[in-house]
Parts: sequence; structure tokens; C-alpha cells
Amino acid sequence: MDSLQKLGFSEKTKLLIIHADDAGLSHSENRATIEALKNGFINSYSIMVPCPWYYEMALFAKNNPQFDAGIHLTLTCEWENYKFGPILPISEVPSLVDENGYFYKNRDQLRENASPIDVQKELEAQIEKALKFGLAPTHIDSHMYSVGANPAFFKIYKNLGEKYNLPVLINEQLMEMVGLDPKLNIDKEDLLIDNAFVAEFKYFETGKLGDFYSRILENLSSGLNLILIHPAFDDSEMKGVTVNHPNFGSEWRQIDFDFFTNEENRAKLKENNIELITWKDITRRKV
Amino acid sequence: MDSLQKLGFSEKTKLLIIHADDAGLSHSENRATIEALKNGFINSYSIMVPCPWYYEMALFAKNNPQFDAGIHLTLTCEWENYKFGPILPISEVPSLVDENGYFYKNRDQLRENASPIDVQKELEAQIEKALKFGLAPTHIDSHMYSVGANPAFFKIYKNLGEKYNLPVLINEQLMEMVGLDPKLNIDKEDLLIDNAFVAEFKYFETGKLGDFYSRILENLSSGLNLILIHPAFDDSEMKGVTVNHPNFGSEWRQIDFDFFTNEENRAKLKENNIELITWKDITRRKV
Repeated sequence: MDSLQKLGFSEKTKLLIIHADDAGLSHSENRATIEALKNGFINSYSIMVPCPWYYEMALFAKNNPQFDAGIHLTLTCEWENYKFGPILPISEVPSLVDENGYFYKNRDQLRENASPIDVQKELEAQIEKALKFGLAPTHIDSHMYSVGANPAFFKIYKNLGEKYNLPVLINEQLMEMVGLDPKLNIDKEDLLIDNAFVAEFKYFETGKLGDFYSRILENLSSGLNLILIHPAFDDSEMKGVTVNHPNFGSEWRQIDFDFFTNEENRAKLKENNIELITWKDITRRKV
Repeated sequence: MDSLQKLGFSEKTKLLIIHADDAGLSHSENRATIEALKNGFINSYSIMVPCPWYYEMALFAKNNPQFDAGIHLTLTCEWENYKFGPILPISEVPSLVDENGYFYKNRDQLRENASPIDVQKELEAQIEKALKFGLAPTHIDSHMYSVGANPAFFKIYKNLGEKYNLPVLINEQLMEMVGLDPKLNIDKEDLLIDNAFVAEFKYFETGKLGDFYSRILENLSSGLNLILIHPAFDDSEMKGVTVNHPNFGSEWRQIDFDFFTNEENRAKLKENNIELITWKDITRRKV
């Protein structure tokens, strides 16, 4: 538990960040994220700068600096009818977009088409836009962990963390999930998330998403842990965004919201000696 | 009734286009527009190319060419938390955007800041994007009639109609509404909409929006008439889009949807000898 040492915690400490991805994606996502921050027990989130509802969420972040808020660096748009693309002019980052000027749908297409220089320019522009608006991001992470699509992108991602002095989400399971070799792409000085949890489709499909989250809380290992969720409401906007995409779809997101705003589930933190920690705490404590 | 002559109708004909503006603005707007086209009695609509839900609506337009669909040329974004801007890079049309890179909220700000060359470039780009996607627009019109903010913009708007061989919404009442002198800005060859109807806030505020629409249908003059409406649902997405903006807000838009999908109201067309006409019909008949 190298990360516990780096942060000055004893080796048995169970640290946990409960993180909402995808803020800014839609009004539904924004409302659910804000509600879960205020009245639920998520304690960190990150914003997608290229998305249609970015401005609403950025205003919230600026006016509510008590909540941990990072930049959810975005290079892909997985939805069928709801499209977004780079914040830079397409002519400056042509390798990032499909024939209609929108981000590719998945990491494979991104890997095949995107040049590192375009990835570098666009991700930096996303951070700069947030800074210019007056945000004080607490961390950076990556939508669909697309920065792991190839080693060059991952290097850019880590360099951005250094450049802006922000902690970066680095985790072996996520790297393996997206096909990036941890051995070759982790440096000794990197602060690692020991365990990152993202639900898989099989849990949603079989109605076991809540059970999956309960089991995480009940069996958490010591170390620096992270649960990635996507709270939103199963309303008509979100059904439209996620149409024909039950994986991380509106029903799934409603379950995420329900679980992490439920007081019985919150009680599991105490019952299992789990300490919530934010990215801001991590920056403060890092040796 | 010069326009009746130009279209080859007898002088007593009551022609009417019932037109939904703002398609593409949101999923709610798209759903309501599509529903009102299919099961209500609106018979034409136009799409906002720079808006977040443009792609969904453009797909619908491409797959449903039986419905009259124009381009709702867009230079302003009136909403508080929901922002959009030019489709061209900001560096190419810097005079069209505020400090955050979004369209100005109203015509006065547009008039003060926008250069004609930027207006020209952006509006042409909006049309070109729609054409490139495979749309076959039936007409062009203008969001908030912002092209009337000054005579130079209006000239550009009319020239675009000529260039793309598309009918253009030109109407004296709308011009007066936005402060443009009809005498100086209408040419003899222009095909005019004799009467254009847009509800005012006082009707909404006093619960008389439906009465206003009924009176139009019951008292329609002969000539080429146009009712501009904005169908959407009063759902959480649309409440978010129109927050603090009851003027053309979500409640208003729900009333528009309800009125123009109501069979009793549709019957008023027949009762009052009103003939629906589309922009495509106008192009076909124009001498």
C-alpha cells in the first residue's frame, strides 16, 4: 500500500473516494450529481468541458468550491443521437473527429485515428477553458479512460497533471480494462489508486448493481480506493441521451443515484471503518 | 395581397403555415416537434444548427423528407444556464460571442458587437453544415428574428436565400418588432408573409395563449399567413433550459404543443376555410 505511505496514513486505513463522472453531460446528470453531492454520499465529481450542459455545471462548481471537482477529460462521445466534439476548431484537431465533426464513439476508433499532438492540444484546451472560467480543478481524470487508448496519450495525460500540478487518476485495473500495460506505463513516482471500481454490464443486466456496490463497501481493502459512478435520472432527457445504449444508460444511472443517496447505504461506510477522502485531501497530504 | 398573386391563388384564399421554431434546441423540443408534426397540425419547422440536439433532429429530417424543414439561422442564445455558440471557430467569428465564447443573449448585444462579415460567415456555415449532412432545407428563417438586428444582416439573410435558392421569411410585423424599417429593407421582388403571428408575453402571463391562437384561426385574413410556435414539453430538461425565462419558457411551450395537437383546434381550420400551405408548396408555385 505504497499510496497510503505516500499520503501518511497507517497501512490498515481504508480510504475511499466516491466519484461521480460525467457532470456537464446533460441537465439530468447535473441535477443528480448536485443532489447526490448535497444530500447523498458521493464526495467528488468531474466535469466534461465539451458537453452541452458544461456551463451550468461550471457555474455550480465555481459557486460551490466546498465540493471536490475535477476535469473529466473527454475524447469520445458514445451516444447515438446526442453528439459533441472537441472544443478546439475541427481544423486544429482533425484526427479527433468523425465525418460529422463529432468525437469517435469508442476507444478503438480513437486509437486508430487520433494523433498524439491533437490529443495534447484538445486536452490542454479543455483544462485551459475551465481555468479561464475561474474553476479551480482538484484533479483530472478521463471519460471512458480513453487516455489509455495508447501509451502516447497516457503520457500526455500524466504530463498535464504535472504541468497543472493536479493529481491524475492512475489505476492498474482501469489500464488493463482499456488495454494499456501497467508495467510499461506506470512510473515509480506515480500516485496510484490501489483499487478502482466500475460496475460491469452483467451486474446491471441481472439487477445486481446495488449488490455490487454493497459488496464493495462491505469488503473494501485497505489502501486508496475509488468507486466511479454516473448519477442521473431515468427521465426523458436521459433516455434520449442514452437511447439504444443500456450500458451506462439512464436506468443504470438512476440506480447509481438511488444507491448513493440512500442513508442505509451511507451507514455502511461507518460499519466498515471506511474513511472518505477527496482529491483535494490527497493533494494536501501528498509527501 | 401581392403574395397570393405571386403564388397563383385567388385573392380570397386564406393560406396558413403553422411553423415550429427551435427544433434541435433540446430533446424535449425535438420530441414535441416530431409529435406535433406526426399527430398534430403543425406543418413546417426549422432546425437550429448550432444547438446540442441538432444531430437528433437532422437525422429525423433526413429520414422524414415528407415534412417541411428549414434552417432556423441562429445568432443568439437567450438562456441563462444552457449555452451554445457559433459552429465556426470563435477565432473566425470573434464578434459573435461573449467572453465565454457563447452567442449573445439578445438582439441589442448582437447589433452592438457583431460585424456583418462574421454574420455572413456563420450563417453560411450553418446552411453548409446542414447541406453536407444531406438535408434538403425547404426555407430559411431566423431565431429571434435576429437577422433583423440591422439592415446589413438582413441583406445577408436575403442574399443567402438567393444563393441557395430557398424562400426566406420576410414579414413587416416581424421587422417592426425587431426595429427594422420595412420600407427601406423590402424589395419589390420579395415574397412577403402578409401576416406573421407570434404570441406576446401578456397572453401567456394572463393564461390567454390558447385564446390568442383560437382568435387567429377564427379571424384569419386572406393572404399568406404564418403562425410561429415553439412546441416542447414542460419537463425537467426544458425547465432547466428556460430557467428564469418564462417568456417562451417551458410552460409556454407545453401550451403551444397542447394547442396544436388538439383535434378541436384542428377543426377550426376547416370551419374557417383555412388552407395549410408549406414552404415547399410556395417554392413550387412561385412564379
